[in-house]
Amino acid sequence: MAIRHFQPNIYYTALGSYEPVLRISGGDTVITTTVDNAGRDASDQEVTPGGNPQTGPFYVESAEPGDTLVVRFDKLWPNRRIGRTSTIIASNVVEPYYVPEMPQEHITAEWELDLEKGTATLIKPETDLGRLTLPLAPMLGCFGVAPPRGQIISSGTSAAHGGNMDYKGFAAGVTVYFPVFVPGALLFMGDGHAVQGDGEIVGTGIEISFDVQFTVQLLKDKKINWPRAENDEYILTVGNARPLDQALQHATTEMIRWLQDDLGLDARAAHILLGQCVEYDVGNVFDPAYTMVCKLKKELLPKRMK
Amino acid sequence: MAIRHFQPNIYYTALGSYEPVLRISGGDTVITTTVDNAGRDASDQEVTPGGNPQTGPFYVESAEPGDTLVVRFDKLWPNRRIGRTSTIIASNVVEPYYVPEMPQEHITAEWELDLEKGTATLIKPETDLGRLTLPLAPMLGCFGVAPPRGQIISSGTSAAHGGNMDYKGFAAGVTVYFPVFVPGALLFMGDGHAVQGDGEIVGTGIEISFDVQFTVQLLKDKKINWPRAENDEYILTVGNARPLDQALQHATTEMIRWLQDDLGLDARAAHILLGQCVEYDVGNVFDPAYTMVCKLKKELLPKRMK
Amino acid sequence: MAIRHFQPNIYYTALGSYEPVLRISGGDTVITTTVDNAGRDASDQEVTPGGNPQTGPFYVESAEPGDTLVVRFDKLWPNRRIGRTSTIIASNVVEPYYVPEMPQEHITAEWELDLEKGTATLIKPETDLGRLTLPLAPMLGCFGVAPPRGQIISSGTSAAHGGNMDYKGFAAGVTVYFPVFVPGALLFMGDGHAVQGDGEIVGTGIEISFDVQFTVQLLKDKKINWPRAENDEYILTVGNARPLDQALQHATTEMIRWLQDDLGLDARAAHILLGQCVEYDVGNVFDPAYTMVCKLKKELLPKRMK
Amino acid sequence: MAIRHFQPNIYYTALGSYEPVLRISGGDTVITTTVDNAGRDASDQEVTPGGNPQTGPFYVESAEPGDTLVVRFDKLWPNRRIGRTSTIIASNVVEPYYVPEMPQEHITAEWELDLEKGTATLIKPETDLGRLTLPLAPMLGCFGVAPPRGQIISSGTSAAHGGNMDYKGFAAGVTVYFPVFVPGALLFMGDGHAVQGDGEIVGTGIEISFDVQFTVQLLKDKKINWPRAENDEYILTVGNARPLDQALQHATTEMIRWLQDDLGLDARAAHILLGQCVEYDVGNVFDPAYTMVCKLKKELLPKRMK
Repeated sequence: MAIRHFQPNIYYTALGSYEPVLRISGGDTVITTTVDNAGRDASDQEVTPGGNPQTGPFYVESAEPGDTLVVRFDKLWPNRRIGRTSTIIASNVVEPYYVPEMPQEHITAEWELDLEKGTATLIKPETDLGRLTLPLAPMLGCFGVAPPRGQIISSGTSAAHGGNMDYKGFAAGVTVYFPVFVPGALLFMGDGHAVQGDGEIVGTGIEISFDVQFTVQLLKDKKINWPRAENDEYILTVGNARPLDQALQHATTEMIRWLQDDLGLDARAAHILLGQCVEYDVGNVFDPAYTMVCKLKKELLPKRMK
Repeated sequence: MAIRHFQPNIYYTALGSYEPVLRISGGDTVITTTVDNAGRDASDQEVTPGGNPQTGPFYVESAEPGDTLVVRFDKLWPNRRIGRTSTIIASNVVEPYYVPEMPQEHITAEWELDLEKGTATLIKPETDLGRLTLPLAPMLGCFGVAPPRGQIISSGTSAAHGGNMDYKGFAAGVTVYFPVFVPGALLFMGDGHAVQGDGEIVGTGIEISFDVQFTVQLLKDKKINWPRAENDEYILTVGNARPLDQALQHATTEMIRWLQDDLGLDARAAHILLGQCVEYDVGNVFDPAYTMVCKLKKELLPKRMK
Repeated sequence: MAIRHFQPNIYYTALGSYEPVLRISGGDTVITTTVDNAGRDASDQEVTPGGNPQTGPFYVESAEPGDTLVVRFDKLWPNRRIGRTSTIIASNVVEPYYVPEMPQEHITAEWELDLEKGTATLIKPETDLGRLTLPLAPMLGCFGVAPPRGQIISSGTSAAHGGNMDYKGFAAGVTVYFPVFVPGALLFMGDGHAVQGDGEIVGTGIEISFDVQFTVQLLKDKKINWPRAENDEYILTVGNARPLDQALQHATTEMIRWLQDDLGLDARAAHILLGQCVEYDVGNVFDPAYTMVCKLKKELLPKRMK
Repeated sequence: MAIRHFQPNIYYTALGSYEPVLRISGGDTVITTTVDNAGRDASDQEVTPGGNPQTGPFYVESAEPGDTLVVRFDKLWPNRRIGRTSTIIASNVVEPYYVPEMPQEHITAEWELDLEKGTATLIKPETDLGRLTLPLAPMLGCFGVAPPRGQIISSGTSAAHGGNMDYKGFAAGVTVYFPVFVPGALLFMGDGHAVQGDGEIVGTGIEISFDVQFTVQLLKDKKINWPRAENDEYILTVGNARPLDQALQHATTEMIRWLQDDLGLDARAAHILLGQCVEYDVGNVFDPAYTMVCKLKKELLPKRMK
């Protein structure tokens, strides 16, 4: 149950079995930082090449394939004043024949954060939006564990091991569950966003470096197939694939498994409950794999399960 | 600006150029009813064959192709006590290899509505859910106008003319905009749900007959490509297609058009705004065409546009 | 077993329950013509508005829902000298971000047919192709029967009733099987192509008017779910949907049904045989529904089934 | 221009920057072997764990990112007598609701090869197929180079670097072009099939160990985006993705690039030519990424380009 301070000095742009940067145990809390998608740190200096560089991997003692890693994000908060976004909606997100009508010139927008007030204000370019100010809603775009089969998978995409899911719900207070595929699980994290629209349709949130505090737990001999999560209000499951239809299939199936296999609901109950109460959120629709989140309000679970 | 009472005695299970049941004018309010998906009315009697039978078509005077029909739903409320749902999640919504593990026997669940308290309570079958009680959230599953090119399209699917979109946001208080493809527009509506989960993943909401009150307006020489809508909080656009990726493309493109062509936002502003503020809702993922909704909070629009 | 000559004077750009233009019986052969996609006839005059205008509907006596209509194309041959194609690959067929790099200006290419030699030669525009000459491979792009549920569906798309499938294999000598959804089946045909690439990726073949001779048969109380076909070498099934994955699912499932339910192959045999011997052809990837064809060589069928 | 004999003693079930097993140079010919998908060698002994174990990686001297690796398969031929297939069509290849109707019990079929006659004969299980005999059509299911960005990607899937494409056209005589992403390119190969249907819809071809002879060349400073290939008759491009629509987009775009950027055809010519002459083949529709092949007959290329 230690508190561990970790200052990264190496970053990876893929998730896999790299040499761990820190060994931690179930119950440990880690206080660390992440650089932004372009490798810029709290002082806005590029300290590593871009491409969603990840802090980690953190080796969790005694984690083995077939276990589940539990990561609670206690704190996710920007640690500098300037964030940046792309300004063109991705061509895969609009009707194909509309693509040529869209802006073609890539311009970077800059946003100034007021970390006390909790706002981000557009400071350039000049547009009809003027100095649009949005409330901060910090979230982690990319995190996960080492994938199965000795693979090393780019932090630009996602799969059953997590990765670049770009889902707004991955904010402070969320607890995320990952299947463990390799000894130590090997937890990575990066790609903080001060604000992000659903789908990350311009390919970025407000990209920024983060202060991060997280706490890990380990569920031994507990196998899940896709990332799960919970916050105060919801239980969530995540599917990462293309098309979105398939991501939705993964997320929905994982939710059925959760309700039946773990919470003990009979099959018919699980189907009836999801049928009238399920909610879906769209994670990213920009990366090679899209992300769909399946949600259920905790208050809907029979009492004994809460 | 008349108030018209209309009691249907014929229903159609497709949207197209059928003989109008009533001719109305811009500004008119219509008070009518819809039967449930199985053709059952307020007394729970089957008065017409099932398959999302539609009330209408309503002919809107002076509506011509190239106009936009505006329909505000003033009231959408169940008019009987018993609603029904399917109890098996659709096989297209789960991982293909998981399908054989699911319940195969089709059972109909019954829900008892308390229209005063505004609740629906599961009364059969017996499951771990017991007498699960949900707050009513009445919404219209299928409505739209006659499609282009002389087509008659099943009320089991959807396209640019609307149809079976099964979106929770189509509740009382919403104003929906449809492209007009034929003289009179020919408005249809039916398939009321007392409650529905996102995606309508069991293929039904709590299916029920409705009392409906709506008011039409006409925007002459105003062309839109896909359904649009607004409520107190949001502007919305709707895409209907498979896969969901394509539905999302239609909805997003229509939202860009709305912001740029109608609200006058410069292109770069529209892209930046949507990039960080867009929201997506999943309509149906059960029917031949899936439905994706693109939303933007009205408060985010520059002041002159609100 | 009559031979019927029919000269069309009305055309429909959708398939549905229109007034029949001719009533025919099982065994009858019809000799008729089709106009091209733009409504131009054998003299290259526009005689009807464009949009894949269809000859028909032909009412087949005693055809009822639940039967199967058999159409053998005895002859499909261009009846004029000039055909036309689009010259830009559809934006939905290339990577989204590549779209702006493609030609944007729509130009029509003209091809001169030599009906004796059986060739089509590009005569304009001037390109590096010079006077490219291709062998004629005449095929019918759009044909089918009236769809179910009283629907009228555009001749620009396709579904279980056939329609705009744009498949090269629908050439003279093919026998096609359609599910019958309405009394009389109501057979339509049009959209002849002198030549066409797989996928119809520019949105056209070499569009041309046709002389057509076909012979119908009726299989009473024989229900199929998707179009089937056969030629000298293959049995074929057709799926029409988006994405292609789903079209492939329909076609494959229909082929399994054919092998098991109609040809009497045991399930394991059907799966093993298709596993190592199935072939797929891509029909259109341009229209709202894409087309995938599943094929099996007749010589692979156990002897008693051929 | 050496001939190199290489007997593998280590195999990888993923493609990435592993220690090279052999260093070769442009012009070299390698004579080697591959084990089958289950890790069984020429004596049908399991010598390595299953999962498409790969022979290699072969380090090609002076290959650098931005180059193109050319691999000609001079010989691909089974080196043992027994091959095996799965016997159930994958659930993702049929209509979702049809899945429960299919065989559920997994049985392995065995095929006996006659390497002199060039045939494979089904010897078990007993089915209506009896001792079905098919002509051998040996092809390599999985091969490619190390992917970009330090990734290691499972030999169960495919992407721009190649991998598990399961395409029948990758037979002896084909020359394949891969983008080089890492120094030495790092060529892998395995997963030989004596016979395979389109799509590999049961998840296997007739799985068998192979004798392989291949010759490499290097095109310096020649960048391609997706695998290309040619045989005597065709030039080919390959897209690997889901859905098939996206795989087709990659393949088609790469073919346009080939015609325009490398063969010097003007844009309009390339579009017209593909529009009427393109052919598509379906590679795998079983793995996480599907494979679509875009083909053009060489004889259709303007003379100076052949």
